[in-house]
Amino acid sequence: MDNRYFVGVDVGGTNVDALLLDENLEEQAFATAPIRNSRGESPVDVIVQTINAVLVQAGLSNHSLIAAIGVGVPGLVDATTGRVELAVNLDEKSMPLGEILAAHFGRPVFVENDANAVALGAAKFLVDPSVKNLAFITIGTGVGAGLVLNGHIFHGSRNMAGEIGHVFVKESPVRCQCGSYGCLETFVAGPAIARLAQAAIDDEAVETTLKNHVAPDAAVVFSEAAANDPIAQEIVNQVGVILARAMQGMMMSFDLEKIIIGGGISRAGDTLLRPILNEWEKMRANSQMASEMLLPEKLTVCPADYKAGAWGAVAVGLKHIPAELPSASVFQNEPMILGN
Amino acid sequence: MDNRYFVGVDVGGTNVDALLLDENLEEQAFATAPIRNSRGESPVDVIVQTINAVLVQAGLSNHSLIAAIGVGVPGLVDATTGRVELAVNLDEKSMPLGEILAAHFGRPVFVENDANAVALGAAKFLVDPSVKNLAFITIGTGVGAGLVLNGHIFHGSRNMAGEIGHVFVKESPVRCQCGSYGCLETFVAGPAIARLAQAAIDDEAVETTLKNHVAPDAAVVFSEAAANDPIAQEIVNQVGVILARAMQGMMMSFDLEKIIIGGGISRAGDTLLRPILNEWEKMRANSQMASEMLLPEKLTVCPADYKAGAWGAVAVGLKHIPAELPSASVFQNEPMILGN
Repeated sequence: MDNRYFVGVDVGGTNVDALLLDENLEEQAFATAPIRNSRGESPVDVIVQTINAVLVQAGLSNHSLIAAIGVGVPGLVDATTGRVELAVNLDEKSMPLGEILAAHFGRPVFVENDANAVALGAAKFLVDPSVKNLAFITIGTGVGAGLVLNGHIFHGSRNMAGEIGHVFVKESPVRCQCGSYGCLETFVAGPAIARLAQAAIDDEAVETTLKNHVAPDAAVVFSEAAANDPIAQEIVNQVGVILARAMQGMMMSFDLEKIIIGGGISRAGDTLLRPILNEWEKMRANSQMASEMLLPEKLTVCPADYKAGAWGAVAVGLKHIPAELPSASVFQNEPMILGN
Repeated sequence: MDNRYFVGVDVGGTNVDALLLDENLEEQAFATAPIRNSRGESPVDVIVQTINAVLVQAGLSNHSLIAAIGVGVPGLVDATTGRVELAVNLDEKSMPLGEILAAHFGRPVFVENDANAVALGAAKFLVDPSVKNLAFITIGTGVGAGLVLNGHIFHGSRNMAGEIGHVFVKESPVRCQCGSYGCLETFVAGPAIARLAQAAIDDEAVETTLKNHVAPDAAVVFSEAAANDPIAQEIVNQVGVILARAMQGMMMSFDLEKIIIGGGISRAGDTLLRPILNEWEKMRANSQMASEMLLPEKLTVCPADYKAGAWGAVAVGLKHIPAELPSASVFQNEPMILGN
């Protein structure tokens, strides 16, 4: 049979990941490469090579066996044309990435903003297929969300939906990357957590195991919190309360079935989740409505070994080739599914 | 020709409004009646009578000329079946309102939650037809929103989308109707504004023209602010800042083309709008992203003479009879269109 493989490509700030799945959506090959290499190759060349790498790994010399290539990339993506604007990772202001790859491989290419791709992948691969409305919140150096509403990526009017990292939270002297003050990401993203840790370290009156680290990052703060350092725990609680409120706002606004937290911080797992759920429990205790809308099972962290970007990119391709798809229900009992 | 009239019914807490439009979507008749009358008739009887009233007004004895009856009603509405849960206005926990009216009139009946209906009506009748994503925020005794996303009502997973009145804003000792603390509506709804006015009145050190009123409501506060009372202006500014931030959050999350403010408070017009836009201007001055997302023309108040509920109900019916519709472009230059 023809057209039986799916390629997903995640174009990140550091690496390009490519994933090859067969018609049963089982992983056949995976490759990753730094987007900038010492040979001075362009990011697009690296993308092409990384796709070729998975094809070679799987011994797939006949491109016509590829049903679709899905691509997730940061920036403003026009999903209908595959053009990427503000494509900083690609060293270009504007690039017809979809056309370039389609011309090279001679196969259908579908490009999406990476946050959207990740959300679509989560809807496809991480949750029960009955879930039609979810947000995948990536917390790393910044905070952003991809939204799947009624089973489809929600783009908004200018492909800017899900910019929750820049939702005003409360007054603050800290200026966000975007120029504003009070943005969610100035309270909960990696640099914000590192800043709170540094402030504790710089305070001579404070005793904390954080002082055993030089310039601790968010991962250190979460691991010291897990090891019961009270100062690290206080920081984690503070972050958790603000995230809990932000996600309460998303639940009340979007009436989602699921929020999944991914990005570097999600590696902290339960240490991240517990303070958020504690705050939700307080809200639920006061209000029938909150009690119904903020069910703890609606919130999960992304499994640490799940390649959210690459699987998300596959989902973007799959979405456009529905006739080729195994029924969604085959995923229902797979180990990768999160608890409902 | 057959099937050429559209009926819109708005079931409010106090009144039932019915509106009859002809095939050119021009108003032919309007009727309103208290939902509870001294004759002890049931709310459903009143709804039927109010629909009959507009038919009689227009001399329309042949029901087969009615293409669709749209109904907007508070509560949890299953739009596919027309069943209303938590139908407090109808004196019932659960009522198959769509079926009842369809059986009575022998015509297609489409029921929606009133906030959703109003948003759909705004998308149809108040804005340029190119607008596909908007929120209609009703501010009265409470705060709620209807959302039109990609041109369709967005219901969320459990028909609870748009509950923005209960989004956490900031810590507060005031308990919301819903039981929670910190909900948006405890800061900006009518009772919250009246409470701030009363606090100013009770403070002997404060001089304000609000003291000329016994128990002033929100309308009084806005009119005294318009008449340059500094205390009333301070209250209006405070409300405006909180609304500005809440709407900033909606813009960043949903990437809307338009937010329309309706409900009793919207009668204040520019007095309400100005402090919100002032706060948006401050945000825009700091950030390129805010500058692009918070364009002042995206925010408007509902025209005071627009019967949002009844027109919204008509839109619900129209949505299901697309072949009967005049092209959306006929509305483009009508006086009812808000400035873009």
